[in-house]
Amino acid sequence: MTTLHLDDLAPGQVYELGRRTLGRDEIVAFAREWDPQPFHLDEQAAAGSIYGGLIASGWHTVCVFMRLYADGLLARAAAMGSPGVDELRWLRPVRPGDTLAARLEVLEVRASRSRPDRGIMRARAVTLNQHGEEVLSFIATLFFKRRPPVSEETAP
Amino acid sequence: MTTLHLDDLAPGQVYELGRRTLGRDEIVAFAREWDPQPFHLDEQAAAGSIYGGLIASGWHTVCVFMRLYADGLLARAAAMGSPGVDELRWLRPVRPGDTLAARLEVLEVRASRSRPDRGIMRARAVTLNQHGEEVLSFIATLFFKRRPPVSEETAP
Repeated sequence: MTTLHLDDLAPGQVYELGRRTLGRDEIVAFAREWDPQPFHLDEQAAAGSIYGGLIASGWHTVCVFMRLYADGLLARAAAMGSPGVDELRWLRPVRPGDTLAARLEVLEVRASRSRPDRGIMRARAVTLNQHGEEVLSFIATLFFKRRPPVSEETAP
Repeated sequence: MTTLHLDDLAPGQVYELGRRTLGRDEIVAFAREWDPQPFHLDEQAAAGSIYGGLIASGWHTVCVFMRLYADGLLARAAAMGSPGVDELRWLRPVRPGDTLAARLEVLEVRASRSRPDRGIMRARAVTLNQHGEEVLSFIATLFFKRRPPVSEETAP
């Protein structure tokens, strides 16, 4: 399988990255480790909150996106890490039993001027629930290697 | 202990939220679950990457911040969740053995016009390493309850 380089990416491309269902125990376990707020931990406390019931930590939703992104795209890509993300929004609560689908929409691809072997991709990272509603959106920025010139590729 | 409400927050306040050291096994375990890229998983692959050695997933660093924030501030606050974050930047790699310190700098506090019982805080979330260098920065937005009026507080 060909490794995905910067040269293979183009604005308008959409990558469907797979799905994952979040169970109640998983939601509580993640929250206990990383985000122990009552509405992520306890059904009764959550029922009395503005969310009206248990919801996943927003960082849990981000981590689920990241895992689907890693398995669904980065595993076959010459990716070099990320300087950060922008405009991260938790648009709707994620509740026990929800099935999340991850999608990446490429916005911009740009070769580096100072480093000709690499470049940068900006993309919208989206996570949808089983009703097709967006629950998470952010702008991802990622460094990718460029495909080596043919002369190098065919060199012994 | 008094619960922290919107009324207790003010621009310029700085909250030191505690520290945590990240071990190699913890870094690899997090990456295996949420961000399985070679430079987070494997010393040898990481040595050949632009990072020159194993580094923690950026989302791991964010989760460590979140946990320190939850324990160090939210546990004693009338917080109501967050609509999102902005300008998240991974400024320096986090490596095995690094000790991370979390800090929150309040930027803006604003009562809601439509919902007099609540308001919004914007703050800069910062994580520093043991050399005092910033490794993570983002703008956090959080909903807080307002302190109930005295008439309500003293009602039977």
